[in-house]
Amino acid sequence: MIRVGVVGASGLAGGELIRLVTQHPDLELTFLGGSSHIGRRPAELHPGLRLDLGLTVQPVTEEVADLVDVVYLATPAPVSAELAGLLADRVPAVVDLSGAFRIRTPELHDRWYPKVRRRADLADRFVYGVPELIGDQLADAALISLPGCYATAITLGLAPLTLGLGLDLKTVVVDGKSGSSGGGLQLRTADLHPLRNGAIAPYAPTGHRHAAEVSDFLERSKPGTIGHLSMSAYGVSHVRGLLASSYVFTDGAVDQRELQRAYVRFYKEHRFVRVRRHAETLIPVPDPQAVLGSNFCDVTVLHDEEGGRIVVLSALDNLVKGAAGQAVQATNLRFGLAEDAGLTMQPVMPA
Amino acid sequence: MIRVGVVGASGLAGGELIRLVTQHPDLELTFLGGSSHIGRRPAELHPGLRLDLGLTVQPVTEEVADLVDVVYLATPAPVSAELAGLLADRVPAVVDLSGAFRIRTPELHDRWYPKVRRRADLADRFVYGVPELIGDQLADAALISLPGCYATAITLGLAPLTLGLGLDLKTVVVDGKSGSSGGGLQLRTADLHPLRNGAIAPYAPTGHRHAAEVSDFLERSKPGTIGHLSMSAYGVSHVRGLLASSYVFTDGAVDQRELQRAYVRFYKEHRFVRVRRHAETLIPVPDPQAVLGSNFCDVTVLHDEEGGRIVVLSALDNLVKGAAGQAVQATNLRFGLAEDAGLTMQPVMPA
Amino acid sequence: MIRVGVVGASGLAGGELIRLVTQHPDLELTFLGGSSHIGRRPAELHPGLRLDLGLTVQPVTEEVADLVDVVYLATPAPVSAELAGLLADRVPAVVDLSGAFRIRTPELHDRWYPKVRRRADLADRFVYGVPELIGDQLADAALISLPGCYATAITLGLAPLTLGLGLDLKTVVVDGKSGSSGGGLQLRTADLHPLRNGAIAPYAPTGHRHAAEVSDFLERSKPGTIGHLSMSAYGVSHVRGLLASSYVFTDGAVDQRELQRAYVRFYKEHRFVRVRRHAETLIPVPDPQAVLGSNFCDVTVLHDEEGGRIVVLSALDNLVKGAAGQAVQATNLRFGLAEDAGLTMQPVMPA
Amino acid sequence: MIRVGVVGASGLAGGELIRLVTQHPDLELTFLGGSSHIGRRPAELHPGLRLDLGLTVQPVTEEVADLVDVVYLATPAPVSAELAGLLADRVPAVVDLSGAFRIRTPELHDRWYPKVRRRADLADRFVYGVPELIGDQLADAALISLPGCYATAITLGLAPLTLGLGLDLKTVVVDGKSGSSGGGLQLRTADLHPLRNGAIAPYAPTGHRHAAEVSDFLERSKPGTIGHLSMSAYGVSHVRGLLASSYVFTDGAVDQRELQRAYVRFYKEHRFVRVRRHAETLIPVPDPQAVLGSNFCDVTVLHDEEGGRIVVLSALDNLVKGAAGQAVQATNLRFGLAEDAGLTMQPVMPA
Repeated sequence: MIRVGVVGASGLAGGELIRLVTQHPDLELTFLGGSSHIGRRPAELHPGLRLDLGLTVQPVTEEVADLVDVVYLATPAPVSAELAGLLADRVPAVVDLSGAFRIRTPELHDRWYPKVRRRADLADRFVYGVPELIGDQLADAALISLPGCYATAITLGLAPLTLGLGLDLKTVVVDGKSGSSGGGLQLRTADLHPLRNGAIAPYAPTGHRHAAEVSDFLERSKPGTIGHLSMSAYGVSHVRGLLASSYVFTDGAVDQRELQRAYVRFYKEHRFVRVRRHAETLIPVPDPQAVLGSNFCDVTVLHDEEGGRIVVLSALDNLVKGAAGQAVQATNLRFGLAEDAGLTMQPVMPA
Repeated sequence: MIRVGVVGASGLAGGELIRLVTQHPDLELTFLGGSSHIGRRPAELHPGLRLDLGLTVQPVTEEVADLVDVVYLATPAPVSAELAGLLADRVPAVVDLSGAFRIRTPELHDRWYPKVRRRADLADRFVYGVPELIGDQLADAALISLPGCYATAITLGLAPLTLGLGLDLKTVVVDGKSGSSGGGLQLRTADLHPLRNGAIAPYAPTGHRHAAEVSDFLERSKPGTIGHLSMSAYGVSHVRGLLASSYVFTDGAVDQRELQRAYVRFYKEHRFVRVRRHAETLIPVPDPQAVLGSNFCDVTVLHDEEGGRIVVLSALDNLVKGAAGQAVQATNLRFGLAEDAGLTMQPVMPA
Repeated sequence: MIRVGVVGASGLAGGELIRLVTQHPDLELTFLGGSSHIGRRPAELHPGLRLDLGLTVQPVTEEVADLVDVVYLATPAPVSAELAGLLADRVPAVVDLSGAFRIRTPELHDRWYPKVRRRADLADRFVYGVPELIGDQLADAALISLPGCYATAITLGLAPLTLGLGLDLKTVVVDGKSGSSGGGLQLRTADLHPLRNGAIAPYAPTGHRHAAEVSDFLERSKPGTIGHLSMSAYGVSHVRGLLASSYVFTDGAVDQRELQRAYVRFYKEHRFVRVRRHAETLIPVPDPQAVLGSNFCDVTVLHDEEGGRIVVLSALDNLVKGAAGQAVQATNLRFGLAEDAGLTMQPVMPA
Repeated sequence: MIRVGVVGASGLAGGELIRLVTQHPDLELTFLGGSSHIGRRPAELHPGLRLDLGLTVQPVTEEVADLVDVVYLATPAPVSAELAGLLADRVPAVVDLSGAFRIRTPELHDRWYPKVRRRADLADRFVYGVPELIGDQLADAALISLPGCYATAITLGLAPLTLGLGLDLKTVVVDGKSGSSGGGLQLRTADLHPLRNGAIAPYAPTGHRHAAEVSDFLERSKPGTIGHLSMSAYGVSHVRGLLASSYVFTDGAVDQRELQRAYVRFYKEHRFVRVRRHAETLIPVPDPQAVLGSNFCDVTVLHDEEGGRIVVLSALDNLVKGAAGQAVQATNLRFGLAEDAGLTMQPVMPA
């Protein structure tokens, strides 16, 4: 059994990590860390998880290294930056779910994460990316930085265009729609149910960090492919799941059939990405409700002839494929397990 | 009192028309028309409206002309086309809420409404537009075609750029998000609550008719201003209200301050359009929950320097400003009443 | 014009009072009071209400008496108790929406409101009750205490049985279901959207104060009629509106027809109470969505032969008939206006 | 591997059976049956389940017997009655999820299921009950009838009082609150999202069949314990999960501590029933959102001294513990597998 520590155990991603790790045949939860809620059991913090693990939330110290083979940092970026410094080289694998180490280009990092001082020594050692695209780098990686939930969806949506079809994406406009769980459980008036329910909240109409993260990654993966990428993000009236719409303008000429085949081919070996036709089932897809609770990312590509653009839609569960599930997936690859070990659950729908 | 007939009385827009007309000081509801639910009272069809009007739903015939001064057609486009032919020149004012007479350019009409045969004689007599932009044409108009709910929001959002600032909009990408009331009450499996709740349904990822309607109108209003406009529309997990996001690329140079001033100036005399700053209240605006039940359209404009674009957000209640309220507003202007007569209700929020 | 002050202007009931007062033909909003958000305009606190009133939130002092003819206290019970002391005899009418003066029997008050010290002099001068039942006491009343939202619904549901039919209610079990707006906008983790949406939250499975309030009132209205009344309350997954189910066991013999007639008769003169048959419209009623935004209370009575009981269902909008609307209704009666002045709006449905 | 057939494969319970069977280590899905959607693959009917099973929906004939060891009937009661006749003695185990064979007392059956003709020979051979209470009868049972979703929750809630503590329940009032998935996917106007969202729909204010089912079972389990049990049921504004509130009046004297201990003791060996204290976690429990997607039933018992009653709250996922999960649980016991085989998934929350 691989011993696992979860730091940030009281948050939503923390709860999801506990859920997935305790259901995993090869992982064993051996440490719960946090800076608040010290001494609390999981059931007190996560109403669904009435587990008898014999664990309570504890502060993170160097001694954690004796208890775990891998530690997940489901913590705010500044905390992750600090804890990564503490645990690197002491724990065999540190997996960071925050934004602290996502953007590799130093100037870009400083611009989008001005409060997270970049430690070059550490930053350069982190492996970053969606497991589907960087799987080989994960084997034996000591430091792993996972993409944000939106960045995962957008990257999986655009990669077949740039890396698969070799298209140059002149202009990309991303419109993101997500549920309230994306904002965590911080006490903010605007997130109280009466004000958040029924909302279409333009919370980040300009300047979303995940756009920078995606550009940075895709440009490094294949320089010159991303011309101009902007993003706006909205909170809509459900809890779990997001849909990223990427509107792509490119000079390349491709039709619907080529696009569909390219996407299917690109993800042939990757069971967590389901390339779906828009009308293949009862409801239009992709729709995040059709991946709820699972590690799937559903992707649909459409050639909008009228509009002179390509429309790429990607849907995922922000707490699973966008956070905890992807962390487990990366861990599986890191430790040589089957990529889908502990992640075979089907979506819970309708919910 | 101006006598009003509502055709399509059993639908959602029909119900809203009944609500607004019966609350209006100068309008009197004298006819309810439809092709189904004949003989039913409003309360049987609209659970909230337990009114004792002495009216039941009746088939529409020429005799209706004796009963009304204005008739609202809240009917599907083919039905509206037919009824407009029947009632034109018999009723002083026919107000059509469908798409039958919205697109003026004949080829465009045929392409987007292939099932609605265009009667040139009739079509050319219809006045079309958002009342804020064509108010003077409405006085004494006999035939009025009102924009679709999305078209209203998008047009109000873009007009200050083209008509106010004189910008050429090279590329516009519109992303629309709406609640389930936009789809009416037709029996479709995908619209049942278990499948529609929690959804982000990409129901029109390409080819939305309202995009054509907006282009057609803005181009006619000021030729050469709309380069390329595409749209995608999504159903999200609430009932009433929509948000249209217009991502605009233009060669013109304007900054945030100029934009804000231009919008405020453009709508200075129009109380139903509220130009709002993104952070002026408890929640990010515009958000359709903040206009619920009212005839307001909230508009916010943002200069996205990083993204090299202008972001225009417009929110409205699709059943009020996007349908019934706008019809009453047009009627007020048509008959020389105060523009806001019967429309002074404030939003019901939170709901 | 009757000059109105609203204290607790930043809360949900405060916002609703502002909405209704500014829509009222005979009322004029002249003062906004509060202990927090001093200096804020309504639009900053209530996203829908972008009104230009020239008013900001101010602390409450004796000088308020010069500005208003009636003051609404939409404040927590301890604050209301204090402010009532300050403003009584200085302002012509003080209308309290809190629980401070609802329970008249001293021992009962102390048991259910142990933190609100009872000032006998003041308490005995307050008129308490649903306007439909105590209308005559309201004319010229100086101090008015309004029932809680649940108490209003339950009392209107049970009164025809005790006061109308003269039945003795041996046992009454009340089950209340309400939306999240009932809890206000306090920052509590359990009220954040991710945890509150989709919930059926048994927040008061035993010991709800409104049960005591109802018993106290009905017993005083007709001693001996209420044997045993218990209540449980739940938060369900919407925002506005509540349904109170009263399951009544009585020795009296009445059948469905008698019940229906008795209810219709009892409320014949009261337009805000709509006695509805369970299947009279598209959806089963009463359902609070069918009264949303309005001052109606929908009531349905059913004789459950099989179950040997009477089922009374009452639905209202907790912010209107359960709070602000009822306050305006009481004000209308207090000042000799038409009972429905400013309250003629129909429900906004669907929403 | 035990070969499994699912009849009613296109419905919500059918989809959930497919989800659970394909995740089960010892079950293999070998047949999908139905009367509509013939020839369709699961992914076409269940948007989340994009499985490549090589199966399509087929009509049910005797030949099904060659393909399966157990068949689930997730069909309307009349269909189940017919198919049970066809498949009994041909398939080793028939598990019926409908109401066709639930009520054993012939007169009661005829009264509540007048359209389902009772075949005495067949009916008497069916084993009925919640697995926790009749586990020993399930071993090798050929015909199994499973309780309804509400009946499961209520029975698990009341059994510790009658069977554990030996109390006589003089009067029980049950108030049930459920999401829209309880009503399936039939096309009914009242179930369309615009009318169902935000509702508190009193769809069965009197006369719910599950009340009869519970009385019948508990009375047969221990005659004389159930005096009078009535039920009212409401649809609230979410999709999955129900809460049953049982308000119990009994002459027996028990206090909170005894109740709590009795419930814990009663379910000590049954991992799917979680006896929870009302305030043991972030939100008040039991709340069905805390069991979503899992086979748990959360039960809380409260002594309401003030109210002179016992309040029992039981929450479960109507599609899992109330349907498909319970079917798998019964199958596990029938075939000698671990009771929780394939059912170890934790709740997905928040969702």
